[in-house]
Amino acid sequence: MFIARSEYDRGINTFSPEGRLFQVEYSLEAIKHGSTAIGVRYPGAQLLLTLSILTRLSLKQVATSEGVILGVEKRVQSTLLETSSVEKILEIDSHIGCAMSGLQADARSMIEHARVESQSHAFHYNEQLRVESCTQAICDLALRFGEGADGEESIMSRPFGVALLIAGVDEDGPQLYHAEPSGTFYRYDAKAIGSGSEGAQAELQNEYHKSLTLAEAETLVLKTLKQVMEEKLDAKNVQLASTTPGKGFRIYSDEEMAEVVGRLPSN
Amino acid sequence: MFIARSEYDRGINTFSPEGRLFQVEYSLEAIKHGSTAIGVRYPGAQLLLTLSILTRLSLKQVATSEGVILGVEKRVQSTLLETSSVEKILEIDSHIGCAMSGLQADARSMIEHARVESQSHAFHYNEQLRVESCTQAICDLALRFGEGADGEESIMSRPFGVALLIAGVDEDGPQLYHAEPSGTFYRYDAKAIGSGSEGAQAELQNEYHKSLTLAEAETLVLKTLKQVMEEKLDAKNVQLASTTPGKGFRIYSDEEMAEVVGRLPSN
Amino acid sequence: MFIARSEYDRGINTFSPEGRLFQVEYSLEAIKHGSTAIGVRYPGAQLLLTLSILTRLSLKQVATSEGVILGVEKRVQSTLLETSSVEKILEIDSHIGCAMSGLQADARSMIEHARVESQSHAFHYNEQLRVESCTQAICDLALRFGEGADGEESIMSRPFGVALLIAGVDEDGPQLYHAEPSGTFYRYDAKAIGSGSEGAQAELQNEYHKSLTLAEAETLVLKTLKQVMEEKLDAKNVQLASTTPGKGFRIYSDEEMAEVVGRLPSN
Amino acid sequence: MFIARSEYDRGINTFSPEGRLFQVEYSLEAIKHGSTAIGVRYPGAQLLLTLSILTRLSLKQVATSEGVILGVEKRVQSTLLETSSVEKILEIDSHIGCAMSGLQADARSMIEHARVESQSHAFHYNEQLRVESCTQAICDLALRFGEGADGEESIMSRPFGVALLIAGVDEDGPQLYHAEPSGTFYRYDAKAIGSGSEGAQAELQNEYHKSLTLAEAETLVLKTLKQVMEEKLDAKNVQLASTTPGKGFRIYSDEEMAEVVGRLPSN
Amino acid sequence: MFIARSEYDRGINTFSPEGRLFQVEYSLEAIKHGSTAIGVRYPGAQLLLTLSILTRLSLKQVATSEGVILGVEKRVQSTLLETSSVEKILEIDSHIGCAMSGLQADARSMIEHARVESQSHAFHYNEQLRVESCTQAICDLALRFGEGADGEESIMSRPFGVALLIAGVDEDGPQLYHAEPSGTFYRYDAKAIGSGSEGAQAELQNEYHKSLTLAEAETLVLKTLKQVMEEKLDAKNVQLASTTPGKGFRIYSDEEMAEVVGRLPSN
Amino acid sequence: MFIARSEYDRGINTFSPEGRLFQVEYSLEAIKHGSTAIGVRYPGAQLLLTLSILTRLSLKQVATSEGVILGVEKRVQSTLLETSSVEKILEIDSHIGCAMSGLQADARSMIEHARVESQSHAFHYNEQLRVESCTQAICDLALRFGEGADGEESIMSRPFGVALLIAGVDEDGPQLYHAEPSGTFYRYDAKAIGSGSEGAQAELQNEYHKSLTLAEAETLVLKTLKQVMEEKLDAKNVQLASTTPGKGFRIYSDEEMAEVVGRLPSN
Amino acid sequence: MFIARSEYDRGINTFSPEGRLFQVEYSLEAIKHGSTAIGVRYPGAQLLLTLSILTRLSLKQVATSEGVILGVEKRVQSTLLETSSVEKILEIDSHIGCAMSGLQADARSMIEHARVESQSHAFHYNEQLRVESCTQAICDLALRFGEGADGEESIMSRPFGVALLIAGVDEDGPQLYHAEPSGTFYRYDAKAIGSGSEGAQAELQNEYHKSLTLAEAETLVLKTLKQVMEEKLDAKNVQLASTTPGKGFRIYSDEEMAEVVGRLPSN
Repeated sequence: MFIARSEYDRGINTFSPEGRLFQVEYSLEAIKHGSTAIGVRYPGAQLLLTLSILTRLSLKQVATSEGVILGVEKRVQSTLLETSSVEKILEIDSHIGCAMSGLQADARSMIEHARVESQSHAFHYNEQLRVESCTQAICDLALRFGEGADGEESIMSRPFGVALLIAGVDEDGPQLYHAEPSGTFYRYDAKAIGSGSEGAQAELQNEYHKSLTLAEAETLVLKTLKQVMEEKLDAKNVQLASTTPGKGFRIYSDEEMAEVVGRLPSN
Repeated sequence: MFIARSEYDRGINTFSPEGRLFQVEYSLEAIKHGSTAIGVRYPGAQLLLTLSILTRLSLKQVATSEGVILGVEKRVQSTLLETSSVEKILEIDSHIGCAMSGLQADARSMIEHARVESQSHAFHYNEQLRVESCTQAICDLALRFGEGADGEESIMSRPFGVALLIAGVDEDGPQLYHAEPSGTFYRYDAKAIGSGSEGAQAELQNEYHKSLTLAEAETLVLKTLKQVMEEKLDAKNVQLASTTPGKGFRIYSDEEMAEVVGRLPSN
Repeated sequence: MFIARSEYDRGINTFSPEGRLFQVEYSLEAIKHGSTAIGVRYPGAQLLLTLSILTRLSLKQVATSEGVILGVEKRVQSTLLETSSVEKILEIDSHIGCAMSGLQADARSMIEHARVESQSHAFHYNEQLRVESCTQAICDLALRFGEGADGEESIMSRPFGVALLIAGVDEDGPQLYHAEPSGTFYRYDAKAIGSGSEGAQAELQNEYHKSLTLAEAETLVLKTLKQVMEEKLDAKNVQLASTTPGKGFRIYSDEEMAEVVGRLPSN
Repeated sequence: MFIARSEYDRGINTFSPEGRLFQVEYSLEAIKHGSTAIGVRYPGAQLLLTLSILTRLSLKQVATSEGVILGVEKRVQSTLLETSSVEKILEIDSHIGCAMSGLQADARSMIEHARVESQSHAFHYNEQLRVESCTQAICDLALRFGEGADGEESIMSRPFGVALLIAGVDEDGPQLYHAEPSGTFYRYDAKAIGSGSEGAQAELQNEYHKSLTLAEAETLVLKTLKQVMEEKLDAKNVQLASTTPGKGFRIYSDEEMAEVVGRLPSN
Repeated sequence: MFIARSEYDRGINTFSPEGRLFQVEYSLEAIKHGSTAIGVRYPGAQLLLTLSILTRLSLKQVATSEGVILGVEKRVQSTLLETSSVEKILEIDSHIGCAMSGLQADARSMIEHARVESQSHAFHYNEQLRVESCTQAICDLALRFGEGADGEESIMSRPFGVALLIAGVDEDGPQLYHAEPSGTFYRYDAKAIGSGSEGAQAELQNEYHKSLTLAEAETLVLKTLKQVMEEKLDAKNVQLASTTPGKGFRIYSDEEMAEVVGRLPSN
Repeated sequence: MFIARSEYDRGINTFSPEGRLFQVEYSLEAIKHGSTAIGVRYPGAQLLLTLSILTRLSLKQVATSEGVILGVEKRVQSTLLETSSVEKILEIDSHIGCAMSGLQADARSMIEHARVESQSHAFHYNEQLRVESCTQAICDLALRFGEGADGEESIMSRPFGVALLIAGVDEDGPQLYHAEPSGTFYRYDAKAIGSGSEGAQAELQNEYHKSLTLAEAETLVLKTLKQVMEEKLDAKNVQLASTTPGKGFRIYSDEEMAEVVGRLPSN
Repeated sequence: MFIARSEYDRGINTFSPEGRLFQVEYSLEAIKHGSTAIGVRYPGAQLLLTLSILTRLSLKQVATSEGVILGVEKRVQSTLLETSSVEKILEIDSHIGCAMSGLQADARSMIEHARVESQSHAFHYNEQLRVESCTQAICDLALRFGEGADGEESIMSRPFGVALLIAGVDEDGPQLYHAEPSGTFYRYDAKAIGSGSEGAQAELQNEYHKSLTLAEAETLVLKTLKQVMEEKLDAKNVQLASTTPGKGFRIYSDEEMAEVVGRLPSN
């Protein structure tokens, strides 16, 4: 019953009688209103992992055959909006980036936090922050909503209304993580978030295979986005980024976007 | 149902079961009561951007052919009110200004914050604050409502009830940003906010083209305002400002206003 | 519906679904219970402004032909009350004063704040605080209700229940500002606040003209008050003050009050 | 309607839709349950004021013909209660005292605050605190209820449930102030507070005249108290105090009380 | 109506529309559940006061003929409870003690506070704390409930649920004070608190006279307790203490208790 | 009526109209769900007390004939649970221990607090903490729930849901205290707490006599537990501890438990 | 009745009239939604305990015949999820690990706390943290929810929604603890938590015996998991870990998992 449920969801951070945290569940709804984002890891990672243990020095040369592709839909309500200012894919560090779905301002806070963590780690330990550690730093921040702002950083009084697909590369090779407002995170081969995530995830489940090439991964991301987008997909309303051992995290230029979109079957 | 919705909107900063932040949405309503404000960027920017990379020294001479025009309606309830004290367009720094719609006092707080950020940046780094950074500083402040006042500045216990059109110029040329109470911001070629924003935006969508001249941009802003204002437009109840690479941000004098208004078709 | 509205107005500083701030609106009601206060600027200011730019040294000699008159009704419930202790017009600094309507104690807090700002400015910068800056300092205080008391001064946990007419003189000549609990302020030629403000403002709108003399301004203020007061106006239950470039802010003595009241038509 | 009103009065310090502060109004009710207190200023003050400007040195010699009489009812529920411990009249400093009506413990807090202010002023400036400043210090404290306890003194979380009649003497001669929980204060020639205040004030209005002598003032206070007291007035259940330029603030001894009570007509 | 009243009593420290503080009134109910306690001052005090002014040195020799007797009922629910651990009479300092009725733990907090105040006063000023000052320190603590714990001592978030009869001796001779949760205190010749206070106070009113001897006072206290106790009074379920100028505060030994109880008429 | 009562019990620490503290009363209910615990003091203590005053040095030799026995029921839901980890009897210091009933984690907090107090006292004053002082330290902690965590220790935001039987020995001999969530404590000869406390206390009342020997006290504790336990009593699901002047506080070993349980009549 | 109960469970940490803490009970529901986790201790521990007292030096050689096996179900919603990132078994220190059921992010906080405690203990005292102390540190953190964040670590504003099975080895041999959100912990021979805990615990009760070998314990854990899992058990969706005196805490490699799963009867 609706009224009865509302007895429990007014407290920011309390359990319902069924053991649920409603504010966290509601923040997931905010993400369901967000634009769709997709991440796909294309293979070579297992191989790399083995090699990197044996021959760490030759890591970069070998690793070029694998990586992670992130793709997002940009919702453009007006032709007067400059699409380049709709940033759904953001760099965290030279080796880590992410795609977001949900509230733009919340994402900015989380990513700013991750950037500081990454710089600080590099400064203190003279090594790049591992992708899992970066994801965990973001998730620890997400868990702390509703607490007193004792620490160094401003913490939200509600859960973050944003989900992230974090793509990065470290000595374990390219990795794709999904981070939720609840502070939970898992590693995926391919994952979709946002308003079209249900259909997109089903598509990924069907199409993903362990021998995808870079070009196939790019096409898979765009084809999947195309199916769940309301607007017709073109080089302006989607954005891709790649993470590879050789080049780290890179957002595709307009020329690169045009080239990949041109490759799609035209139906 | 109205009563049911109210269960969720009493918490200042909590999600509803549908993932909505009601207080932020309600603050947008406050802006819908505000006077209309319009910003239009007239072209040359793309060209400038290219040139500035090649020949940064010649930037100012070249850039004079482009800019941003801001225009606002001044609602004058009484002839005894001095219209010059109705400040809907305000300077942030010599290269950045903004037009506001919504609660005057809230706008003053946000702009004061932006002024301090801009001065502080110039002092510390000996360079002008970029327009996007300025916009982000304002939006970060907007996001932080409802938090403990730990930081240097007083923060609101509710969302700001004001939207801003921020026009500025930096090495990327003249730019126009729209900043919302939610902390979201995007860059636009032309954007309207306030009570007449719906009609005005439709008009801009129709009339805007990439080869507008300065005079055409001024006329477009005033013509659009004229259509959505309840009072008859004259040189007293509207205000214009321009942002250009050469002269930075300038509010039009009474003489300049009279000249531009005089150019409007008289029907 | 009444009950439904009350769902939103219990939070001190939250938006209603229509984007309204009920506590601020309710504080305006407190002012509507207050005694009427009126301010009228009599001309010469435009002239002065021009002159002051050209020949700043001769400012004081020239400016004597213009100024602002403040007038208030004193509600005297009992003949045992000493009317001189009913202070509805108060000095802020030698060049700025104000008339209040609403809660006496709230006004005292605001004016004490303005006095400190004014003294502090004079001490630090060796110049008088400008009238607009003084008004803004008061309005910034008004906006900050409901916040933690971090700053130097005690801040109210509710909006101030008082409106002020601020009359002052600086290098821009005599000026009249109206400041509201919402933190909004505008400059006026003539403005009425308090329980009789509606009728009084209509009267001012009709009678005000740009060539008022000092004596005409005094008479206009008293005549307008007379129309909206329930008691019969006499030299005891009204109070006048003037602000002029030459003499700054001065509250009329009993003799001066008697003289001006004597000039009123006796019907 | 009762229920509807209660929607607004639960917030400690919020406006109702009609602009009322219910908690402050309710605190006035607490005072209406209190015992009656009366203050009467007997003339000579106007004269003194004039003289004091001309010949300040001769102030004390001249001023002896005027002053303020405070009188209170002591409610004695039991003959086992020592009436001397029912302190309704208290000294603030050698030149200022007050009569209270309402909650005893709240009065003690306010008066302790005033005592500290008075001592501190004398210590810092080597002069006695003026009566109006003392009253204002008390009223500023009253206004601050509901705020964080940042300052030096403990502040109440609700309005003070007490009204004070403050009688003091400074270079302006003897003065009588009435201070309310709202932080409002006015100067009076004669004023009654507490449960019998309505009848007593009407009586004072009728009987007060500008040529009262000390003895007449004492009699007026007691006669007025007698009319509104439920118990029969005697030298034990009333208390008087005087404030004069010569002797400052003095509470009457048992002998003096007996003498004044003896003078009353016996019906 | 019950429901309506409850609208106002949920706030810890707010006035009801009738000007009542419900939480304080409810705490008085907690005391009505408490065991009965009685205090009786036997004469000689007036005499002492006079003498002490003339011949302070001979104070102690003269003052031995007067004092205060405190008596309490000990409710013993079980014969396995050790009655000596039911402490309803406690020492504050060598010259001050008290009898309590209400919540044991609350009393312990208040008395601990009084002990610290008394020791601190003696240490700083090298003199014993006066009885009235001690009572006031307790009452100031009682008033401060609901405030932030800024000060040195832990303060309750609700009113104290305890009343005290404070008996002490200083240069004004032996004195008996009654202190309430509201922070109100008065001096009494004889006073009863707790569940049997109504009947006991009526008895005291009848039996008390100004020429009681020590033995008569002891008998009066016990006789009065006997009338209001449900259990049969014996030397185990009552406790006496005396405060005299010569010996200060002393709790009666078992032998003394047996002797006084033995003196009671046996009906 | 149930609903009406609930109006008052939602505030953590507020009085109901009848002067009750519901949260404290409800915490007692938590204890009624707890396992039963019993304490019995066997005689010799009175004698010791007398002797200890005369001949403190010979205290330990003399005192061996008396002490306190604590006994608890261990509820073992599963044979896979290790009963030794069900700690219902805990040591506070070498001379003080306690048996608990209620929430395990709350008991741990209280006992940790008592341990620190005891160690700290011994360190600062070079003497063992007295049993009453130890009990009072626990009760002061219990009273402070709902307060800000200013002090050195973390304080609960609700009452502790645990009751303790504290058995210790000091120069007054062995003593048994009962401490409640309300902060109230009393000394007992024999006391039962927990779910079976009502039946057990009645049994103790009948069987206790002042000439119990150690063996008789052990048997009395176990016989009483046996009557109120749902499971069949054996050496695994009960635990005993003794406190004696000679050996201080000791928990019985498995062998000792088996021996005492073996002595019980077998019906 | 549902509505009535909800009156009490909205306060984060308050007792209901029946003495229950609803938020803590609701957090147990969150655990019932979690994946199943099982711990089984296989014998030799009792023997070790005895030996370790006599001959501490030979501890490690002797102890190799006993230990604790932890096993968890990994719920894999998608084949695109990398199962190695579903960490339900985590290391705390080289000698302690744990299996979790409930909210992943909460578990991470608790385990991070335990890791810091363990490292800190080792650093300060140069010895490994005992298993019981480690469990107690986790439970103390769990108890402190709802308190101000004064301490060094961020504390939750609600109970932790996670249960842990803690397996460790110290000088008392291998031990298995179960820790709950309430802060309660007990030691077990075999224990199941999570959604299948009821069926699993019944199975363990039947099958557990004191002479289990390592291989038998591994098989018992997997067989029990298999019965309560919805998916078909394979080497990917379960995980085992062992704790032994010789090797401390170790998570099974993929090869080891495959070997043990292969041993299961294939029905």
